[in-house]
Amino acid sequence: MAQREIPYKIYLEESEMPRNWYNVRADMTKKPAPLLDPDTCKPITAEALGKVFCEELVKQELDDTNRYIPIPEEILNFYKMYRPAPLVRAYCLEKKLGTPAHIYYKFEGNNTSGSHKLNSAIAQAYYAKEQGLVGVTTETGAGQWGTALSMACSYFGLDCKVFMVKSSYELKPFRREVMRTYGASVTPSPSDTTRVGRQILEEFPGTTGSLGCAISEAVEAATERDGYRYVLGSVLSQVMLHQSVIGMETKAALDKYGVKADVIIGCAGGGSNLGGLIAPFMGEKLRGEADYHFIAVEPESCPSLSRGKYVYDYCDTGRVCPLAKMYTLGSGFIPAATHAGGLRYHGMSSTLSELYDEGLMEARTVKQTEVFAAAEYFARIEGILPAPESSHAIKVAMDEAIKCKETGEEKVIVFGLTGTGYFDMMSYEKFHDGKMIDYVPTDEEIAQGLSKIPNIEG
Amino acid sequence: MAQREIPYKIYLEESEMPRNWYNVRADMTKKPAPLLDPDTCKPITAEALGKVFCEELVKQELDDTNRYIPIPEEILNFYKMYRPAPLVRAYCLEKKLGTPAHIYYKFEGNNTSGSHKLNSAIAQAYYAKEQGLVGVTTETGAGQWGTALSMACSYFGLDCKVFMVKSSYELKPFRREVMRTYGASVTPSPSDTTRVGRQILEEFPGTTGSLGCAISEAVEAATERDGYRYVLGSVLSQVMLHQSVIGMETKAALDKYGVKADVIIGCAGGGSNLGGLIAPFMGEKLRGEADYHFIAVEPESCPSLSRGKYVYDYCDTGRVCPLAKMYTLGSGFIPAATHAGGLRYHGMSSTLSELYDEGLMEARTVKQTEVFAAAEYFARIEGILPAPESSHAIKVAMDEAIKCKETGEEKVIVFGLTGTGYFDMMSYEKFHDGKMIDYVPTDEEIAQGLSKIPNIEG
Repeated sequence: MAQREIPYKIYLEESEMPRNWYNVRADMTKKPAPLLDPDTCKPITAEALGKVFCEELVKQELDDTNRYIPIPEEILNFYKMYRPAPLVRAYCLEKKLGTPAHIYYKFEGNNTSGSHKLNSAIAQAYYAKEQGLVGVTTETGAGQWGTALSMACSYFGLDCKVFMVKSSYELKPFRREVMRTYGASVTPSPSDTTRVGRQILEEFPGTTGSLGCAISEAVEAATERDGYRYVLGSVLSQVMLHQSVIGMETKAALDKYGVKADVIIGCAGGGSNLGGLIAPFMGEKLRGEADYHFIAVEPESCPSLSRGKYVYDYCDTGRVCPLAKMYTLGSGFIPAATHAGGLRYHGMSSTLSELYDEGLMEARTVKQTEVFAAAEYFARIEGILPAPESSHAIKVAMDEAIKCKETGEEKVIVFGLTGTGYFDMMSYEKFHDGKMIDYVPTDEEIAQGLSKIPNIEG
Repeated sequence: MAQREIPYKIYLEESEMPRNWYNVRADMTKKPAPLLDPDTCKPITAEALGKVFCEELVKQELDDTNRYIPIPEEILNFYKMYRPAPLVRAYCLEKKLGTPAHIYYKFEGNNTSGSHKLNSAIAQAYYAKEQGLVGVTTETGAGQWGTALSMACSYFGLDCKVFMVKSSYELKPFRREVMRTYGASVTPSPSDTTRVGRQILEEFPGTTGSLGCAISEAVEAATERDGYRYVLGSVLSQVMLHQSVIGMETKAALDKYGVKADVIIGCAGGGSNLGGLIAPFMGEKLRGEADYHFIAVEPESCPSLSRGKYVYDYCDTGRVCPLAKMYTLGSGFIPAATHAGGLRYHGMSSTLSELYDEGLMEARTVKQTEVFAAAEYFARIEGILPAPESSHAIKVAMDEAIKCKETGEEKVIVFGLTGTGYFDMMSYEKFHDGKMIDYVPTDEEIAQGLSKIPNIEG
């Protein structure tokens, strides 16, 4: 059997690395709905977007027709410092589970940001530099995006201002120091350094923050400074585009060994990893060339796809960003302070939302205690200490593999292992000490979040 | 030129991975001096060593004639989970330094222990398991060895008791939690849980500990329990043997691209990384097949090779271990609490000591502030956030590359990047805040350490 020759880790050669990003929107018959201008509630113009984002990124944001976007040479060279990422055959996990399934994971944690976030950070920093900007601002949840962006900015000599969700800032003190090593400044959000931050603090005193709040602050900090733009690590279509490098490499690695995936699983916060991982596979599905079972794994505490509505909503709590049509719990929904800060976002990529709405993928929620149990199990078997976010995908991949054991199916399960958990040891400690609590929003909490969504036709 | 085709990262295929460890002692005309029994001061017998160490490891410890030792299949399979480690061509660093030198580094940090330590940990755990033991005890400095061993023990279902140097225990609280994730118990050393720990605490109240103290405690904890043995992450010849996988892979990767190294650089604490990295190259040098310039980089605060004596000495502060002929500052020398805990050892591998004594390699000391400056510089250019220990080698590699710039020489410089600094952020913080101090032992301090070395003919 061909499978017997598959190594533990499939590394592509540099020459086999993708030279293009893949734009899944080009293959969608029904395109994701356009972003709306928060002032007019009409489709936003490139000009208006250009006040917030870099020019070239605005083009990418609005481009739903070009299937392949060439990766600039300088970005390719940076990619070569930490990519290709290995596609790992989880032989040890398969054996331990006693499953006939073949489990693969695309491991994106082998770089200092500790996650896949660097794939888009370097692209966004590159375009900012090309445009002659002084610096960029951003938000970060778990800290992975902020670290990635500070690395990318350091590489291109850009200033980098990071607003970090307060709960993560407190849980991950060393993250700040990594960003500082790369020359970034880091502010816990909500903060009193912005108008919107002060408003949020007034409305929700004692809040531990959310990605939505931090985005509002970062946008304000960018638009009120000359030579700055705002950059975002998830949700946007440009980010899905850059992250498609994950899926492109995964597909190239599988193709190299003649392996066809059956189930493809990713954790879903704003959608950056999931969107990137599934992109080329979804393209095949959209073109009718192949079928795959896609699973988006959400935390039970923040179930945008599973319990949200597919409507236009603000991308940020402060309502300063464009509106997107997406699955959302409402921009006023502040998720419980769980240990997967990177998944605490009220909405979901509009591309993924549309694909989900068309029934092209499944969404599933998991509890954080079962996620940490899966994480520890995985760490002991496969060696890698996973980030809590990534471990959502591990949990469901294990569930699927166990199902295969019951049915005897030799399914090929592929999941995204987006990052490492070195900066999550306080969370692991809580888990070890039995002090971790599962948060499930009540129907009233969900309803309250949804009730604040503006009523806009999409 | 062939060099132009060299990728950023050279990964061997699984089929190209070494299947043997290389025992450099087999090629040494003058063998390292035998270990001595602390009770009799005569060469220690396999039987006496077997009370402390696993049987098979005792054989490896005493074997100075077999050039190649086959790597057992189960260890090879575990290696495949995180090896081969990449040999990285530091294109970005070369460009930034403007040097004609070609810089390569063997990166051993892409595994959860964060360092090369796993190479020997999995071997030692394997042999302990084969012997039917219940568990093992050990010491750890920076925490990398303890983490590695806890991973290895978890894999084979062994109990794991770790004594962690107190200064590191306090600087790296999250390390403990990683070890706990892998099921190990961790005690700060010196502790009151052992006789020798209590003695050390009495003699040096308020001490921040050292590897030498922690070793004594771990040995006592092993020898006074049924079904336990002590395992050690450095210094011993068996460890050099296992770590030779680093050098074997490095050499295979260079050979694959027809590259011949000129200078080979490694940080040196007990010698595990340096010994492993240089092993096959030193073999060539010993056999007269090739010449290399080897540089052992020591912290100025703990300069065993540079300022020590080549005599028989105790391997541990508590004097419970066998004596080794080695370069030593005296087993009573407690190095200042610097931020490279993994290099705070008073002695040096007896194999490396002998090679150094024969003039086959150079030793150089560096200050920790210049080490952190090099580390930050490297992180910003090459992306990887290095461990303070590894950064000793970075500093000297950069120095050598800058020399090449001055002389115009196109030397090939290879260094060992032994691990990542994710758990060293408190140290980076001190550096950023300008609060890091350089420690240089005075001549009196050195003389005092040396004066306590027993007077034994070797």
